[in-house]
Amino acid sequence: MTSAAPAPHPGDDPRPTLRVALLGAGTVGSEVLRLMRIHGEELTHRIGARLEVIGVAVRDLDRDRGEHVDPSLLTTDAESLVTQADLVIEVMGGIERARSLILSALESGASVVTANKALLAQDGATLYEAADRHGVDLSFEAAVAGAIPLVRPIRESLAGDRIQRVMGIVNGTTNFVLDAMTRTGADQAEVVARAQELGYAEADPTADVEGYDAAAKASILASLAFHTRVGLGDVHREGITEVTAEDIAAARRMGRTIKLLSIVERIVDGDEERVSARVYPAMIPDSHPLASVSEAYNAVFVEAEAAGSLMFYGQGAGGTPTASAVLGDVVGVARQRVHGGYGPRESAYAELPIAGIGDLRTRFYLALTVEDRPGVLADVAGCLSSHGISISTIHQQPLPEGEGTGERAVIGISTHRAREQSTTAALDELSARPAVQSIDSVLRLEGE
Amino acid sequence: MTSAAPAPHPGDDPRPTLRVALLGAGTVGSEVLRLMRIHGEELTHRIGARLEVIGVAVRDLDRDRGEHVDPSLLTTDAESLVTQADLVIEVMGGIERARSLILSALESGASVVTANKALLAQDGATLYEAADRHGVDLSFEAAVAGAIPLVRPIRESLAGDRIQRVMGIVNGTTNFVLDAMTRTGADQAEVVARAQELGYAEADPTADVEGYDAAAKASILASLAFHTRVGLGDVHREGITEVTAEDIAAARRMGRTIKLLSIVERIVDGDEERVSARVYPAMIPDSHPLASVSEAYNAVFVEAEAAGSLMFYGQGAGGTPTASAVLGDVVGVARQRVHGGYGPRESAYAELPIAGIGDLRTRFYLALTVEDRPGVLADVAGCLSSHGISISTIHQQPLPEGEGTGERAVIGISTHRAREQSTTAALDELSARPAVQSIDSVLRLEGE
Repeated sequence: MTSAAPAPHPGDDPRPTLRVALLGAGTVGSEVLRLMRIHGEELTHRIGARLEVIGVAVRDLDRDRGEHVDPSLLTTDAESLVTQADLVIEVMGGIERARSLILSALESGASVVTANKALLAQDGATLYEAADRHGVDLSFEAAVAGAIPLVRPIRESLAGDRIQRVMGIVNGTTNFVLDAMTRTGADQAEVVARAQELGYAEADPTADVEGYDAAAKASILASLAFHTRVGLGDVHREGITEVTAEDIAAARRMGRTIKLLSIVERIVDGDEERVSARVYPAMIPDSHPLASVSEAYNAVFVEAEAAGSLMFYGQGAGGTPTASAVLGDVVGVARQRVHGGYGPRESAYAELPIAGIGDLRTRFYLALTVEDRPGVLADVAGCLSSHGISISTIHQQPLPEGEGTGERAVIGISTHRAREQSTTAALDELSARPAVQSIDSVLRLEGE
Repeated sequence: MTSAAPAPHPGDDPRPTLRVALLGAGTVGSEVLRLMRIHGEELTHRIGARLEVIGVAVRDLDRDRGEHVDPSLLTTDAESLVTQADLVIEVMGGIERARSLILSALESGASVVTANKALLAQDGATLYEAADRHGVDLSFEAAVAGAIPLVRPIRESLAGDRIQRVMGIVNGTTNFVLDAMTRTGADQAEVVARAQELGYAEADPTADVEGYDAAAKASILASLAFHTRVGLGDVHREGITEVTAEDIAAARRMGRTIKLLSIVERIVDGDEERVSARVYPAMIPDSHPLASVSEAYNAVFVEAEAAGSLMFYGQGAGGTPTASAVLGDVVGVARQRVHGGYGPRESAYAELPIAGIGDLRTRFYLALTVEDRPGVLADVAGCLSSHGISISTIHQQPLPEGEGTGERAVIGISTHRAREQSTTAALDELSARPAVQSIDSVLRLEGE
């Protein structure tokens, strides 16, 4: 199963040399090169072979890449570079080109380390299958939660256990935004602009604020945790764009904090088991450990049958932390080249069906603007009740008079666990009521 | 390097069978058997081979071991059992017999999974060396922090990084005791008795309360983190027996919590690097994440150069969580038998010297009972200053009058970072002063 033994080192060092190709020399790539250089001797000891960077593929040869990138290694010909390597590190991002280069590396017998969550979520199966067919490794610790060891613990440490649920904050940008909104009371637009200035959000923040990044990570986590292929399309996704300063204030009044959560869960119903994977902003109790995860940090709860609750916390992004995770994989993959064997393959034997969001039962927080007159509150409560939704707390507050709209009030309701379908149906019915002027918020309550 | 391939399964299942011997059928052993049975099919999928338990070695055949232990598998002849297995799980504990059985298993070509922290701390090198010589695996995730994946993340996920410090709560019993003292204000003796009733402390709690268990774990963590052999004798060890209700109250006044910490650290002094490994009760700020680790939970902070701060949290003991960690190792080791390769070997290339406790620089909390008269406070402060110890805060409080001892006061002092040696010398000098009646507490301040 293992590919050709690495070439012996030409000098007097009897340890072999592994040829490494790096795809991408951005924030992560240049940190990978820096760490490989300053810790070269230690890495050699840990692997039992030297790593020799034979080339760094970039799109633009003329761009200044700082002191850690040797210009003589740069090439635009990634296609031939990957076929000459024992080990390919893909930190260029993007989908089509990355996939084609990774496939060509695997076909040439190279092992691959990648941080590309979007590609794995979209088309991981093709890559896993190619790695398997060519007897080489595909490792991706850096794809989820940056420096936090999470892929390896889930795949290997918990391999003798049964994972029930993984719930975490795995997108640093949205956590930075929600945390700043909570601390300052500011509007989202203002906070996003500030995050962009500080480099915590991209110029186009869509992938983060719309939850695409968190959904890609949920897809990877669900696949690993439940030995089932869970694609990006199987993940229910809601971003944070609709979270307002009023929602944050309402959460505070309720002793709660709003976080964007990625949740993957084994749902057991009699003999039937299904997988739920979802990303949405949710209110969690202030006392929940995830509530105190601030700024751009990540934290992930894992609940397993025997191990109980485990938490992992650390930096989920950034060039240096991500490079640490990449290099951990590089050492692992390189050791297998030297000593034989290979890492875990894709494991999708369970093939559990995916649970649709409609069947999910969660608690909700609902905020509605209504006409402030007798009977409206009872009518809203009655409508929820007719859909089998039981109210936990309700809070009504008059609004200052607007421009000729008459007297209005905001009703904030937290429910007991209710089916998503029932909640949607109740909200549809409520929004058709003349007394209900608008439905302002629909947020889940999690972490009880 | 790999040993003989496992035997094919006799039935129509083409997957091979691995023969498993279990040493010990106590709390952990019986849970291992239970989980192997209820998750048998899943484990087979994950490994690519069936696990067949060929025997369970115990000392007493007649003891009732509950429904999960098949009596026909019990044997007292552990010596021959281990020579017939592909995989030996050692959860019997103890030193001499466990060592001899593990060595004989390794010599017979079996891979070994053990939870025996005391043995690894005392004589890990002998075991690692035997595993290496016979080309088999020795795994021990369950030896440190129970179900929390920690050994694998440190050895593998962070293999491309440089660990600077590991600091954690790795003994559940002492955390239960200190947590209960903090919550209730009770004396240690009372709380230990309660912990014994609840099963959180052994009848003889010495290994826990004197810090031996935490020191064994520190020795293992230091060896892994710094690629250096750190034996039990290299770990400075202080238990919690001298922590009083007054210390707990003093900590609360200072916004701090007392925890028994295992700390292993890379100390860099110019070009020289050394390893410090130590266990002691310390006051940490209430805002530190370790301060909120309650009851028998464990939590460990890892600081690495590139990854930054990581935290791991979960159940550090108990039959079921420990069995989860054991089985994770079993799957990993079994996969290597089936697919070739082997896990990380002992890595001690760095051979860093061990730093003595005397050279360590930490902050201290000191409590002294003194005569309550003018000049004593100034004298105490002067003595510390003459040893180069700078005071951060000082707090003097008169004591109620005792039986004819005159008026007394307690001085509580927190210092800036000071050398341990200087502090010891200053305390020796102070204790010889007639005005100083007793030195009541010497505790470190950590986690700033």
